[in-house]
Amino acid sequence: MMNITTDGIRKQNLAITDATAVDHLLRTSRVGYLGLVDGDEPYVVPLNFVWHSDSIYVHGAQYGRKANLMSNSPKATFTVADEVGTIAHPVPAKTDTAYLSAMVFGKIAVVEDFDEATSALEAMLCKYVPGYYDTPLHSGHVRSYVSGAGSHVAVYRLRGEKITAKENPNQMSMMFYPGRTRKADLQHDQK
Amino acid sequence: MMNITTDGIRKQNLAITDATAVDHLLRTSRVGYLGLVDGDEPYVVPLNFVWHSDSIYVHGAQYGRKANLMSNSPKATFTVADEVGTIAHPVPAKTDTAYLSAMVFGKIAVVEDFDEATSALEAMLCKYVPGYYDTPLHSGHVRSYVSGAGSHVAVYRLRGEKITAKENPNQMSMMFYPGRTRKADLQHDQK
Repeated sequence: MMNITTDGIRKQNLAITDATAVDHLLRTSRVGYLGLVDGDEPYVVPLNFVWHSDSIYVHGAQYGRKANLMSNSPKATFTVADEVGTIAHPVPAKTDTAYLSAMVFGKIAVVEDFDEATSALEAMLCKYVPGYYDTPLHSGHVRSYVSGAGSHVAVYRLRGEKITAKENPNQMSMMFYPGRTRKADLQHDQK
Repeated sequence: MMNITTDGIRKQNLAITDATAVDHLLRTSRVGYLGLVDGDEPYVVPLNFVWHSDSIYVHGAQYGRKANLMSNSPKATFTVADEVGTIAHPVPAKTDTAYLSAMVFGKIAVVEDFDEATSALEAMLCKYVPGYYDTPLHSGHVRSYVSGAGSHVAVYRLRGEKITAKENPNQMSMMFYPGRTRKADLQHDQK
């Protein structure tokens, strides 16, 4: 069960709690942005991921800045956004963006369970190379991937303790496209 | 002058210092992810932005969580990525992603100077609604936008003190597309 909350969102009119919309966004977004904390400095890294069992799964090196931060400071935020387009307006200050975005808050940790790691990697292949493999992921592949002698890669899980989501819906008649002008919009309004 | 460094990047073979490539990425990316710190919790918010005078400019509310965090804890990271596509491989563990990404590190603060705010907003309109307005931004618009009686909006500047960038170039012959299969790739290799 996704814990979608509107707590802490200033513009409550943009907050959404539609689990289906959030689920769709998390399943279709190809890149998410993992935020971590390094003392008083934030660190934001773009990652492929899969939304699986109410968690964000990513994989990556067991060494390096990101891995160190995750073990020292496990509180994480994972943000995805679908920018639909720019909403034009004859008044510049009213130019706006149509989008759907979600933030997943929780703690991130290495997945130690082999079956869980396999399942997450399978879901990831299914997302990024759908139909490429004609057989399910061979467990030997996973083993060599996450625990092979030369491997320094791990699967990480961010359990979604809290999710917030925002949507500014598109306004089809006002979406910007190349060639659209304020002049033509004003003339159109006068007719 | 952009201070592009490879410091702290584990995979040095992916690090790039090509200022032209980084500049192009920062100018063409429509959404960037601003990372802030809230105690021991990271906060990552997707934003439209403009890369202008070696700085990231964004605009947004003067109130709310993001605004509070920026004034309490000005160290920020702004990350953009261009995901080119997935590189398929008959060996699942060798599936990879082609991308170009950049992280801009620095302090973020409200732009107090009116001319600087105007210039940033003009650059932003030029980026998101190119050609829409037939006249330059009227200063009255900016004034009502950033300091009008009913306005609670500010322009923020993240001065790029340090930039890191990474690239995993595409491998055209192995990029995944819907319908591509491992079986066909292996048969092709055998010929």
